[in-house]
Amino acid sequence: MTVVGVIGGGQLARMMIGPAVELGIELRVLAETEGSSARDRATAVGDYRDVDTVLEFARGVDVITFDHELVPTPVLDALLAAGVAVRPGPSALAAAQDKLHMRQVLTDLGLPVPVWARAETAHDVAEFLAANGGRVVAKTPRGGYDGKGVAVITDPSEIAEWLAAGPVLLEELVDYARELAQLVARRPSGDIATWPVVETTQTGGVCAEVILPAPKASQRLIDVAAEIGRTVADGLGVTGVLAIELFETTDERILINELAMRPHNSGHVTMDGSVTGQFEQHLRAVTDMPLGGTESRHEWAAMVNVFSAMDVDRYNRLDDQSGVKLHNYGKDPRAGRKVGHVTTTGAELDDVVYRARAAAAIFTTAN
Amino acid sequence: MTVVGVIGGGQLARMMIGPAVELGIELRVLAETEGSSARDRATAVGDYRDVDTVLEFARGVDVITFDHELVPTPVLDALLAAGVAVRPGPSALAAAQDKLHMRQVLTDLGLPVPVWARAETAHDVAEFLAANGGRVVAKTPRGGYDGKGVAVITDPSEIAEWLAAGPVLLEELVDYARELAQLVARRPSGDIATWPVVETTQTGGVCAEVILPAPKASQRLIDVAAEIGRTVADGLGVTGVLAIELFETTDERILINELAMRPHNSGHVTMDGSVTGQFEQHLRAVTDMPLGGTESRHEWAAMVNVFSAMDVDRYNRLDDQSGVKLHNYGKDPRAGRKVGHVTTTGAELDDVVYRARAAAAIFTTAN
Repeated sequence: MTVVGVIGGGQLARMMIGPAVELGIELRVLAETEGSSARDRATAVGDYRDVDTVLEFARGVDVITFDHELVPTPVLDALLAAGVAVRPGPSALAAAQDKLHMRQVLTDLGLPVPVWARAETAHDVAEFLAANGGRVVAKTPRGGYDGKGVAVITDPSEIAEWLAAGPVLLEELVDYARELAQLVARRPSGDIATWPVVETTQTGGVCAEVILPAPKASQRLIDVAAEIGRTVADGLGVTGVLAIELFETTDERILINELAMRPHNSGHVTMDGSVTGQFEQHLRAVTDMPLGGTESRHEWAAMVNVFSAMDVDRYNRLDDQSGVKLHNYGKDPRAGRKVGHVTTTGAELDDVVYRARAAAAIFTTAN
Repeated sequence: MTVVGVIGGGQLARMMIGPAVELGIELRVLAETEGSSARDRATAVGDYRDVDTVLEFARGVDVITFDHELVPTPVLDALLAAGVAVRPGPSALAAAQDKLHMRQVLTDLGLPVPVWARAETAHDVAEFLAANGGRVVAKTPRGGYDGKGVAVITDPSEIAEWLAAGPVLLEELVDYARELAQLVARRPSGDIATWPVVETTQTGGVCAEVILPAPKASQRLIDVAAEIGRTVADGLGVTGVLAIELFETTDERILINELAMRPHNSGHVTMDGSVTGQFEQHLRAVTDMPLGGTESRHEWAAMVNVFSAMDVDRYNRLDDQSGVKLHNYGKDPRAGRKVGHVTTTGAELDDVVYRARAAAAIFTTAN
């Protein structure tokens, strides 16, 4: 039996448990804490930055993969030196860990990205502001997620603290009509599978809703997004599932916003909406099994995140909502925390979205 | 968090693991052996016939349910006396444990069953043979499964050994056109959900293939099967999923063949074919959550069992079969053993069945 070790015990690791059981894969998780979301399969609890901890966890594991992209490169190199397959590999992860590096790699691949620059001084920032309408996006290269480490600025002084700590990524403020995401899977042999591009809605920088497929998407848009997905997966040699967050501009161009070198919130909708969900596909990809079909099971599928609390008592308010699929991350309640998601499917877009929002509201309202 | 304890560590318990994770249910399994199919969640290994073993396992468990119907009534009664919910309850399980009792209960409910009798002597058998064409089915009331404990006889002497051990169930040899199965779920509140009736194909008394929905089924047939399902679930007060194996006769009547008071091989097709699969539904039902939708995700779904071996090396032969869903029971190879199943879905019945058989053949052929 193939043994897959996941570094990180969050909901992404948790949602690999079911597919691993069905595929006959033994899943082991290195969790950060005892009560992690993936605690059912946590065979170790420890610090993923510690080489010895990670090497000990990896003993008897065939493939190491990830719940997040934070594992330091020296730890990844130590795993490779110990003969453990690491998927995705260190070079692909490096592109996700450092946004400046990511922008450079994508630019080198000829992929469409916003106008960007590396700023080391207030002067660099002032120049970029002057050239890009006086209002731009600044990002710390490392450590940002869910809206953290990102700011819209009009003056260098607003990021003086970031600049003091190191270089900052500057990007044009893209005039986008909506956000999309392209999910892709690639196995070591090079086979690639793409799902239809999805529409995502962010609230306060956090993914809130996803619709599969992206409504009103032209065939050209679908094809361009899939081709971007293949180019990134091939160009970076990614193994596993990756997500490419995209802007669709008001003049119908697509620009790459962010990369996630792992299953991603924008892909949760595939669990119930597609023949093969992203977590099953990720396990197939990292164990070098044939990839599963990515066609949709229904005309439409909608995913809405549940924040703060997802307790069993509230399930009973879903009595007239038999088509809702529940995904509970097993987390303690906390205001604003992603604790689960719901998915609905069907033939009518408006109905599917309405039902998903109504179901999520049952959990996210205060009473 | 709700804690569900499953007695028995076979593939039925194993296939509850994924849905339990998504629903936020803690699943615990009392397995018979260390290397059980459901070993990932086995919190105890022991004999389900031993009251102390089962009571110890049930400590801290909210609801006890089952991988099989073999738990003795005194053990079930001890659980109830200890204040543990047992779903399905002892009276429903008794009907599945004893086929004579089952026939009597169904007859009392006015449900369609084959002509039957309880035989205690060779004389009883001879009388029944004379009244039913000289060729009938004999069944031991207890312990039979997958074709064991069932015989077609023309003379009382053929079951002399069974009669010496106790009463035997005799049934007319039904001239059936095909076999069907009706899956039903019922929660403690009384809510019931039925899936569309499926067609099942047995080989040597063992379930081999299932098609959802049953091809060429008239609306009348679908309605009659669902109504039988509701009557059995209500009449026996079943909580959880149950399967009713049916004969469709050449003159278009439906007769009840067997009952299974648990998720059943005939329902595996719902995992990939329906909005709610039988294992998720079983967990919803026994924890008294609202039942999930039972509508199909595709026009057709086909399930084919895999026997003997399901090893990872053979997965790679599925390279041109991206739509196949794999379910590996994590069992050691053994000739004739059910070790997994595959499911395919789609719009064309012939294509769906062909692909499922082809995929299963990859695993079941000798080379």
